[in-house]
Amino acid sequence: MEKQTLAEIASQKLLQMIQEEGYTAGDKLPTEAELSEVLGVGRNTVREALRILMSRNIVTIRQGSGTFLSDKNGVADDPLGFTMIEDRRKLTEDLIQIRVMLEPPIAALAAQNAAMEDILCLEEILLELEKMMENREDYSEKDSQFHAQIANCSHNLIIANLVPVITDGVRVFAGSVRETEYAQTLLSHRRIYEAIRDRRPVEAQQAMYFHLMYNENRYKEEDRERN
Amino acid sequence: MEKQTLAEIASQKLLQMIQEEGYTAGDKLPTEAELSEVLGVGRNTVREALRILMSRNIVTIRQGSGTFLSDKNGVADDPLGFTMIEDRRKLTEDLIQIRVMLEPPIAALAAQNAAMEDILCLEEILLELEKMMENREDYSEKDSQFHAQIANCSHNLIIANLVPVITDGVRVFAGSVRETEYAQTLLSHRRIYEAIRDRRPVEAQQAMYFHLMYNENRYKEEDRERN
Repeated sequence: MEKQTLAEIASQKLLQMIQEEGYTAGDKLPTEAELSEVLGVGRNTVREALRILMSRNIVTIRQGSGTFLSDKNGVADDPLGFTMIEDRRKLTEDLIQIRVMLEPPIAALAAQNAAMEDILCLEEILLELEKMMENREDYSEKDSQFHAQIANCSHNLIIANLVPVITDGVRVFAGSVRETEYAQTLLSHRRIYEAIRDRRPVEAQQAMYFHLMYNENRYKEEDRERN
Repeated sequence: MEKQTLAEIASQKLLQMIQEEGYTAGDKLPTEAELSEVLGVGRNTVREALRILMSRNIVTIRQGSGTFLSDKNGVADDPLGFTMIEDRRKLTEDLIQIRVMLEPPIAALAAQNAAMEDILCLEEILLELEKMMENREDYSEKDSQFHAQIANCSHNLIIANLVPVITDGVRVFAGSVRETEYAQTLLSHRRIYEAIRDRRPVEAQQAMYFHLMYNENRYKEEDRERN
């Protein structure tokens, strides 16, 4: 009990240190020996404190090379408890519903707030996405990246953390695209990108809405065929 | 390593068992001895498996009385990594922004989908809230309950898990209500409730929007005064 508490206190101090020093994703933290000295606790306590921060996705420990700041920004694995929702069909429908609600206004915010470098990054992802679509490769991960980058363009930190949780969820539970839909999917991503690039929030919102409703229709159609 | 893996496998089996048996929040799970037999693993492995599910907020262990299904539905503590957002003012503004985006359409969905028992529960919370306001008590936790129940009324399971994360976040980081605002706050909650009760999605959405914008104005005003 005593030790648990020590490690928790150490983990909070460590978190504070990480924030004050301004570490960002991928940065290497000091060694266990150094942390032991800075925090004034034993190596075992440091190790346990690091394990606590790892379980919260704040740091990642790479065996042999040290401890790094995690690129998960402290967002938990399965943060919203999807695992506990037993009915997979209901889960997919609910995920699609929340996307249709949330992502169009986020696209508008992205068109308003994106910095030039955000837009260049979005363009890069779009070009890779288009190439994958043309080659008929599985682009679902790249598609998630596209939507995550739009969330980043919004400059709302919580939106940036939330959107990947939702889009990855849909990706896992919904089916993949059919041959006939590549052209439509390609077009709608480009329209969203161009509206954000041209700083047209209203059109960005509408283009995102159209894209998501198209997907929702597709899901419902497939669902009807399955049942 | 070997043992870790055994416990993880056991925790997945246990999760599957929980879902198949249809346990709900507060239900008592079988004892460690019983689980050991059912899962075909040793008591130590069962204990570790339970600890894994506890760290994911799926079960809760009450010393001396046993293991119960958690009422957190597997939603992680600080699921969206608020701790890692250093700028508290930016965090509060971003939380308010996402509320304004998300909660009005959720109120509309609630007015459309709520069952009679959901509405009765919402009314009960409202009456308690009004009493607390009249007595000038701190009603912030009850207010979070009110918004969480509207999310439940939507019958979207992800919305039900997400909204408390957002509203609790705002509650922690934003200030409390002033004397002059009790009447306004009381009125706007009642309007939201009545629109949901009367199954008027458009008015529910507008009432929620008005309520949140009022709060946003209040926060911005206080923020100006502080700075």
